[in-house]
Amino acid sequence: MSYETTLGRYILAVDDAIKKYLSDARIHPPLASAMEYSAMAGGKRLRPCLLLAANELAGGAIEAALPFAAAIEMIHTYSLIHDDLPAMDDDSLRRGKPTNHVVYGEGMAVLAGDGLLNYAMQIMLSAALEDESRKALRAASEIAERAGVWGMIAGQAEDLLAVNREPNEKALYYIHTHKTADMLVAALRAGGIIGGADDALLSALTVYGEKLGLAFQIQDDLLDLYGNAASLGKSTGKDEKENKLTFPALFGAERSMTMQGQYCREAADALSAYDSQFLATMAYRLSKRES
Amino acid sequence: MSYETTLGRYILAVDDAIKKYLSDARIHPPLASAMEYSAMAGGKRLRPCLLLAANELAGGAIEAALPFAAAIEMIHTYSLIHDDLPAMDDDSLRRGKPTNHVVYGEGMAVLAGDGLLNYAMQIMLSAALEDESRKALRAASEIAERAGVWGMIAGQAEDLLAVNREPNEKALYYIHTHKTADMLVAALRAGGIIGGADDALLSALTVYGEKLGLAFQIQDDLLDLYGNAASLGKSTGKDEKENKLTFPALFGAERSMTMQGQYCREAADALSAYDSQFLATMAYRLSKRES
Repeated sequence: MSYETTLGRYILAVDDAIKKYLSDARIHPPLASAMEYSAMAGGKRLRPCLLLAANELAGGAIEAALPFAAAIEMIHTYSLIHDDLPAMDDDSLRRGKPTNHVVYGEGMAVLAGDGLLNYAMQIMLSAALEDESRKALRAASEIAERAGVWGMIAGQAEDLLAVNREPNEKALYYIHTHKTADMLVAALRAGGIIGGADDALLSALTVYGEKLGLAFQIQDDLLDLYGNAASLGKSTGKDEKENKLTFPALFGAERSMTMQGQYCREAADALSAYDSQFLATMAYRLSKRES
Repeated sequence: MSYETTLGRYILAVDDAIKKYLSDARIHPPLASAMEYSAMAGGKRLRPCLLLAANELAGGAIEAALPFAAAIEMIHTYSLIHDDLPAMDDDSLRRGKPTNHVVYGEGMAVLAGDGLLNYAMQIMLSAALEDESRKALRAASEIAERAGVWGMIAGQAEDLLAVNREPNEKALYYIHTHKTADMLVAALRAGGIIGGADDALLSALTVYGEKLGLAFQIQDDLLDLYGNAASLGKSTGKDEKENKLTFPALFGAERSMTMQGQYCREAADALSAYDSQFLATMAYRLSKRES
């Protein structure tokens, strides 16, 4: 099956799952609208696709992995809603649409973010209650740990504090490893666990995710410098203006491009022992992405 | 054992557990400081004490319930940090101290709240991984559901939307049931489950929590009207100024006081078949509280 066919199948399944979860009538209706606005705003669905691909690579069927794919995308979405708030990055455009707080107000945007994080945890706990094998519980725990206070949130906190500070390599790697790579690793490991991966495959998926995360973030930094706001669907040139700690800011654009290509190759190499055409292609495509 | 002795024992155990969890060196240090500032600001620890009391009433030992007691207090604390933000209630004083965003800035306060919610889930998932009986998983699920988008967060969303709207009884009960009572019920049911409660006790604990939640919230509304800011440790008179939907606003102060006493009695009655001196006394004390 071609890369595009598989990708399309994953995205369709994730979109359907997220829509189904968010249409639960018990959710406070205006809150559900605010949550759905951002969750269905047309993201790349990178994290859930990685999760589903890792699950299939490990030999799992898609159904058992879908709750986790939806949950990790909800966690990613909540982090964007909160990150876009005036108190954080103060962004008014995301995925080509006005950001959540611009449409629903700051108070509701805070709650929509809280709601998506909490709901993601509910979905995973609910899947764990139905799974006697405890694989779901292990996957939920992987995601919660890497999304949390020594994972993604730690990266965001360091990102917030690094603005206008003397650039240094240690802080840069801390931010990008935790803010970005941790969630890719969480997706890959959770998918692997649900699919029944052994320790060797889980280790390979971890290295792939760590390298891909750094490559993805460098590309993000480069696109903020050179990208087109229209095709990106968000403002550009912000990092430099705000004195953010990025790869181009520390190493220059040219060296950053070289590093980005290197991380992509290392990502693909990590899985060379496995039949992972999809994940290898994904690493290659991400290195060339323009949005 | 006297009510005060038991309460003191619970609070000490909860404080120790929260401190221990927040001193984990893996947490981003400045983020940990912001989380601890609010989590250790001297709250009443109502929810964890209810959880521990329900656990002991069901016959459980305190150790297995402590992670859940710490987790529910962290969830309560995150909801206060986000609720105090300028975009929400815009409070600068809480428990007699400057609110989180006043000390750490709005961006870090958003992350400290996100961090506490996520960490609470991690703690519960971690306890569930160590518990073969699945009681921990059921307790975690109870708390996540009632803290979420048809529980506490739903109550906050409705609270946000009810400002300046025509007061109506249905919205008032929706807000107070979800914003306040749901978390008390979550604490009681989670504690009961960990302690091994049967369905009859879980039902009685649920009714007790629902009634206590309404009584507690009416008292909160009355204290905002008549209380002393110094002994409360937060601003008063805000509900009326902001045209909030409260019991006194809808029913008047006198009728609200009568209703509050009635709910307290109904709470105590719900547990009359059980040896629950502590919970009965707690209902009585809450009805008289002045802070």
